[in-house]
Amino acid sequence: MTSDTFRAAARALLDRADILAGHTETPGQLTCTYMTEAHQAVASQLAQWLRTAGCDSVHVDAVGNVLGRYHGTGAGVAGRLVTGSHYDTVRNGGRYDGRLGILMGIGLVEALHTRGIRLSRDLEVVAFAEEEGVRFGSTFLGSSAYAGHFDDRLLTTLDRAGTPLSQTLRDAGHDPAEIARAAGGASGIAHYFEIHIEQGPVLLDLDAPLGVVSAIAGSVRRRLRLTGLAGHAGTTPMRLRQDAACAAAEIVLAVESRCDGRNGLVGTVGQLEVPNGSVNVIPGACLLSLDVRAADDATRDAALADIDARIAEICARRRVSLESETLLRASAVACDPAGREAWRHAIGAQGGAVHELVSGAGHDAMMLARVAPVSMLFVRCGAGGISHHPSEIVTEADVAAAYAAAWAFLLAYSA
Amino acid sequence: MTSDTFRAAARALLDRADILAGHTETPGQLTCTYMTEAHQAVASQLAQWLRTAGCDSVHVDAVGNVLGRYHGTGAGVAGRLVTGSHYDTVRNGGRYDGRLGILMGIGLVEALHTRGIRLSRDLEVVAFAEEEGVRFGSTFLGSSAYAGHFDDRLLTTLDRAGTPLSQTLRDAGHDPAEIARAAGGASGIAHYFEIHIEQGPVLLDLDAPLGVVSAIAGSVRRRLRLTGLAGHAGTTPMRLRQDAACAAAEIVLAVESRCDGRNGLVGTVGQLEVPNGSVNVIPGACLLSLDVRAADDATRDAALADIDARIAEICARRRVSLESETLLRASAVACDPAGREAWRHAIGAQGGAVHELVSGAGHDAMMLARVAPVSMLFVRCGAGGISHHPSEIVTEADVAAAYAAAWAFLLAYSA
Repeated sequence: MTSDTFRAAARALLDRADILAGHTETPGQLTCTYMTEAHQAVASQLAQWLRTAGCDSVHVDAVGNVLGRYHGTGAGVAGRLVTGSHYDTVRNGGRYDGRLGILMGIGLVEALHTRGIRLSRDLEVVAFAEEEGVRFGSTFLGSSAYAGHFDDRLLTTLDRAGTPLSQTLRDAGHDPAEIARAAGGASGIAHYFEIHIEQGPVLLDLDAPLGVVSAIAGSVRRRLRLTGLAGHAGTTPMRLRQDAACAAAEIVLAVESRCDGRNGLVGTVGQLEVPNGSVNVIPGACLLSLDVRAADDATRDAALADIDARIAEICARRRVSLESETLLRASAVACDPAGREAWRHAIGAQGGAVHELVSGAGHDAMMLARVAPVSMLFVRCGAGGISHHPSEIVTEADVAAAYAAAWAFLLAYSA
Repeated sequence: MTSDTFRAAARALLDRADILAGHTETPGQLTCTYMTEAHQAVASQLAQWLRTAGCDSVHVDAVGNVLGRYHGTGAGVAGRLVTGSHYDTVRNGGRYDGRLGILMGIGLVEALHTRGIRLSRDLEVVAFAEEEGVRFGSTFLGSSAYAGHFDDRLLTTLDRAGTPLSQTLRDAGHDPAEIARAAGGASGIAHYFEIHIEQGPVLLDLDAPLGVVSAIAGSVRRRLRLTGLAGHAGTTPMRLRQDAACAAAEIVLAVESRCDGRNGLVGTVGQLEVPNGSVNVIPGACLLSLDVRAADDATRDAALADIDARIAEICARRRVSLESETLLRASAVACDPAGREAWRHAIGAQGGAVHELVSGAGHDAMMLARVAPVSMLFVRCGAGGISHHPSEIVTEADVAAAYAAAWAFLLAYSA
C-alpha cells in the first residue's frame, strides 16, 4: 500500500469520527454514555460500517459490544487477532478517545477486503460499549463482559435517574442473563492490540506521531482528611498553630518531589480544599486527594510507602491528625514483549524514530490482558495533549502513519 | 481595696456578662448584631448599670453608643479618661469579647462611687454599639462615630434583608443626621484605655493572667488566583505540568516560613481551594487568601515584599499565572508609651510577671488612636485561647487581677 492509500484511509477515518460525534445527548457537545439513544445509534452505525468493510460476520453482544469478524485462512495458526476500543464517551468529551481504535480496525478490514487479502488468522474488530464509567460509575463494562470478567453484582447499580443497569439493558433489547454466556473474548485470542490517542502530551513533546506502550500504569487513589486546630489568624502565634493547610501544602510538595517520572511514576493531588475557609481563620481542616501511578506496582507501592512515611512525619511534627481512605487500587499491566517488538519494528520500518511510553490512563487492554497478550499503539494527541475535552484532536498525517504501522504490524503478526 | 473586693467585683462582672448573653437573636447561641431587638435590650441594660454604678450622666448617642460620665475634680488637669469596648457580637460568639471591657468600666465607676472617690479627671465609660461588622459588613461603626470618623456613605449600605443602615437607625429611634454632630470623642480625651480578652493563646501559653498590648497589628488581606493548566493525572509527565495546586502549596509554605513571629509578624492562608477539583485531574486553578499582620507597617510590608518576590519566582518557574486582589490594608497602631508603662507598673505592683504582646486582632482602640493616646490591657482567654465561639471563657481570678491592675492604673493616671 502507498502512503496515498494510508492518507485516504486516514481522511475516511476522520470523516467517520465526525459522523459518530453527531450522535450526542447534549447538543453542541459530545456526550455518549452507555445505552442512551445516541449510544445505540453509534452501535448501529459501527455495525453497518463493519459489514460494508467486508467482515464475514457482525453481531452485537448482550452488553452492547459490536463485533465484526474477518476470517483468516487458518493455515497452521491457533487463535485470532483482536483489535478494538470503546465507543462511549465522557460528558462533553472528544471524538477520538476510544473511537479512533475502532475505526482503525474497520479501516484495516476494509483495506484487507478491498485487496482480497486473507491473513492466516481471523481478525476480530470489537467496539466496546462502555469504558468510561460515566452512567453507572463502573468502568470497563464492555471489555469486562467480553473477557468473561463481568461482575453480575453491577446489574443492580442505579444511574442518576434511578434506573438499574439490568433494566437499562432490557429497555435496549438486551438480556442481562446473556452477558455471562456471551463472553466472546474469554478464550481463543492469540493477541489483542489497541490503537488509541495518547491523551497526554508526551508524543507531542517528542515531536513523534506514534509511540509504543510499554505498560499501562497501575494506580492508587486515596482521599485524605487532615484535622488541625482552627484559630484566629491575627492572635495565634506561628509556633502555637496546628494549621491543616500548611500540612497539606507539605504533602502536595512531598508527592510531587517523590513522583519523579521514573518507571512512569506520577503523583497528583487533584482535590485540595479548606472547608469553609475564611481569610482570617487558621485552617482547622483540609481535604485532599492522592493519585499515584506507575508502570509497575512495585514502583508505585514503593513511592506510596515513602509518601506515607512523609505524611506521618509531617502530621506528627505539626500536631495534625490524618484520616485516609483508599478509593481505588488497580494493578499495572505490562504489554506483551513480542507485541511491543512488532510495533517497534512496524514504526521503525516507516523510517520514524521509535519511542516507548507508559500509558498513565486505563484502557480496555487492561481487561483483555486477563485473557490474552496485549499491545498498544499510541497516536499523538494535538492541542497540548488534551483529551476528555472538545479540543481533543489528531491530525490526518498522524492517523495515516498509524495506518502504515498497523498494516506492517498485521502482516508481520499474521501474514 | 482588698483582693476580696476585686474578687467580688469580678464575680459581679461575670454575672452581668451572663445577663447580657441572655439577649440574643439565636436561641441557644449568642448573636447580638447591630440594632436588632437583642442589641437594643443590651444597650438599655448597660445604660441602667451605668446609672446605678454612680455615673453623673448617661446617654445613648445617635449611632447607639452608650456613654456614662463619672465626674472628676478637674483639679489642674486637661482632658478626660475614656475606657470602653463594644457590645455587639459575631454570630454564635462568646460573651466576653468586647463586653468584658465595658463591664470593667462600669465596675470601676461603681468602686470609685461606693468609696466616694473622685479622680482628678472625668472618667467616661463608652459601650460602642458596633465593632464586628456582621450586619452591614463594615466594622467599627460605634467607635468611628464616637471619634468623629464615621463615613456617611455607609448609611446607604444594606443588610442581608435589604434594609439600609439609615432606615435601621430611624427604626430604632435614632437620627442618622445626628451622627456627625454626636462625635463625643472627637476631642478632649487625655487617654483611652481598653480592657479586652486576648482572643488568642499567648497568655495561656505564658501562664499569665494579664498582658500589656504593645501595638495593634496592621493587616493586609489579599485574594490570589493561580492559573496553571489542567491535565490528565495519569498521562501528563511531571516535567510537563503546570500544576496550580503545587504552586499554591509552595506559596502557603513561603508565607509560613517568612512570617516568623518577630515584631508580631504572622501570616495565614485561610482559604485554599482547587475549584471543581477531581482526583484524576491536575489542578488548572487554585484560589487562596493571604492575611499578613505585624506590630508595625514596615515589618508587615517588608514581609509582603519578600512574599511577593517568592510568589513571582514560584509562578514563573511553574508557568502559573497570578491574579491578586487586595481586600484590606489597615495600618498598625502603636500603643502610647506612657500608657504601656502605667500598665506594666500596675501589673508589676500586684506581684505578677509583666508580659507585653502585640494584638493581632483589631479593636476599637485603633479608631480611638486617631484622636487620643491609647493603651490596652489583655486578659487571659481560656479554653485554648478560643474566641468568637461559645467556648470563649475567662476566669474569675483573672478578672479580679484585671480589676486590681486597672485600679492601680486609674489611680496612677488620675489620682
